Amino acid sequence: MVILGVDPGTNRAGYGLIKKEGGSLSLLAYGCVEVEANSDRNKGLVILYDSFVKIIKKYKPEVLVIEKLFFFKNAKTITQVSEARGVIILAGLKSGLEIREFTPLQIKQAVSAYGRANKQAVQKMVRLILSLDKDPQPDDAADALAAAICCANSRIFE
Amino acid sequence: MVILGVDPGTNRAGYGLIKKEGGSLSLLAYGCVEVEANSDRNKGLVILYDSFVKIIKKYKPEVLVIEKLFFFKNAKTITQVSEARGVIILAGLKSGLEIREFTPLQIKQAVSAYGRANKQAVQKMVRLILSLDKDPQPDDAADALAAAICCANSRIFE
Repeated sequence: MVILGVDPGTNRAGYGLIKKEGGSLSLLAYGCVEVEANSDRNKGLVILYDSFVKIIKKYKPEVLVIEKLFFFKNAKTITQVSEARGVIILAGLKSGLEIREFTPLQIKQAVSAYGRANKQAVQKMVRLILSLDKDPQPDDAADALAAAICCANSRIFE
Repeated sequence: MVILGVDPGTNRAGYGLIKKEGGSLSLLAYGCVEVEANSDRNKGLVILYDSFVKIIKKYKPEVLVIEKLFFFKNAKTITQVSEARGVIILAGLKSGLEIREFTPLQIKQAVSAYGRANKQAVQKMVRLILSLDKDPQPDDAADALAAAICCANSRIFE
């Protein structure tokens, strides 16, 4: 099965696609959907929606995995990220995908067995787990791959 | 011109449609899109999106007006309302509408000349401004109509 992990932010959303066959995981693709910082923020929602519909059409994942939101520095950030989160989940549901949500702690533990791993540690572990040549960049994409790995290793798909 | 005001909440979103001809405002429709409290919250995003696309198709507004989010009691509420806000704005943009945002203060002042008007005062003033037979119910719908009135009276459309 193909799993799409997503890490939405204010200016871009990381995505990562992995394939689970039996007990083994392999990379399909990863990257970021950029939403220009200076452009109309509302139009950014259209860019996000259209981009994720395209990504889903291309790689045909069955599940979209996204981090549960908890704490944020300020109300503006949480509002922007939640709006992005809403349209990305909508893109998944409209494309027939199942939506799965995990806490930041669950995702970090899935790749590092240590809930307080920093960004670099997550990138290194994602590289090892998926046997990549280099650390996945930027960290938004690495976090998206970590979310997909977390989902792949959760009991629900065993 | 036809203006669609929206007031998104966690379990439902109020909407109100008014027509502006010269200096006069008249009511087209108002109501609420209900998102069942116990149903899958993510599926609620699809209900919201599809409902607003339908409402827009039926009444053909040129502008979608929505309140800017500022303060919330807790992170869960702000997350849910922002996700709803994101998909409703997406529905507007995908349907070719212009998006306009006002602060809660601007919207209250537009109907009451008093920024701290309570829910009942807003309902009464919306009733008077649009010459309705009764106060618009529930308050989500009245707030949505107030947002539309605020936009209609803003200088941008004069």
